Amino acid sequence: MSAIDKVLDANQKYAEGFKQGDLPGRPTRLRLAVVTCMDCRLHVSKLLALELGDAHIIRNAGGIVTEDVLRSLIVSCHIAGTQEVMIINNTKCGMLTFKDEELAAKLRQETRKAPVAPARFYAFTDLEENVRQQLHKVRSHPWIPESIPVRGFIYDVDTGRLSEVPA
Amino acid sequence: MSAIDKVLDANQKYAEGFKQGDLPGRPTRLRLAVVTCMDCRLHVSKLLALELGDAHIIRNAGGIVTEDVLRSLIVSCHIAGTQEVMIINNTKCGMLTFKDEELAAKLRQETRKAPVAPARFYAFTDLEENVRQQLHKVRSHPWIPESIPVRGFIYDVDTGRLSEVPA
Repeated sequence: MSAIDKVLDANQKYAEGFKQGDLPGRPTRLRLAVVTCMDCRLHVSKLLALELGDAHIIRNAGGIVTEDVLRSLIVSCHIAGTQEVMIINNTKCGMLTFKDEELAAKLRQETRKAPVAPARFYAFTDLEENVRQQLHKVRSHPWIPESIPVRGFIYDVDTGRLSEVPA
Repeated sequence: MSAIDKVLDANQKYAEGFKQGDLPGRPTRLRLAVVTCMDCRLHVSKLLALELGDAHIIRNAGGIVTEDVLRSLIVSCHIAGTQEVMIINNTKCGMLTFKDEELAAKLRQETRKAPVAPARFYAFTDLEENVRQQLHKVRSHPWIPESIPVRGFIYDVDTGRLSEVPA
């Protein structure tokens, strides 16, 4: 049985017990957007105790503020009324385990193809500095209102605890 | 009290009860990556019954396969051994509620700034067709192995149920 078929079975059971009322798409209680890593060791809604309807969650490899994350944050702020942004990287991020050019070279060699996108993988070596860079990218964008607090954190996947990174 | 301070308080309690053992960054049990929307009405781990360590979760405005999502999927497949990909859009997506050019024009006018990125917002009008386009983008990338099944779904935010979109 494929992984997808397993989670589809699980979704059948979820839907049978499903009661959410009529929630709006705007995250009305917390008005929060969270940018974090796709890492399988992060259950974002649990580690922040988010209920359905509380927050937009944006995730990619590393919790990197890319053009796509800025797109999502602009939609979150201007279409859905988000008023605070958290950026969370994690202590055992896979992006600490390789180098961009090594991965690209390996893939070019194995596939004999050299696509122009993605232009970068955004692997990094310094976790705190990486968080700070992502904060700066959000704060620098002219379509993210200056009134919106943007704060950065590191999630420790061994202890479950968040610690703030000074800007 | 700010929303971020509220979720930080909640995280303290989460960390006090935290026991996860020593999980690898590779999603070993399911070897699955899920691409879906940032929508606050989706608790991805709950609706798919994912445990810690089961799957990479990639989220943005709309569940759109952008350059950044391809970047994340390539890392997921080649650094972390992912072997199946699900794309999930949802019935009440905010991206169905506006038009790219209207939002960009409004922001240019309000801020008197015209950043070159993001180049698009990826608002859409046809949900099934949107899912199909995202499937095609993943399948077309030469660095996503052809052996990896890529399947598309619509999540009904009123019933909690997933339905598959034929490719």
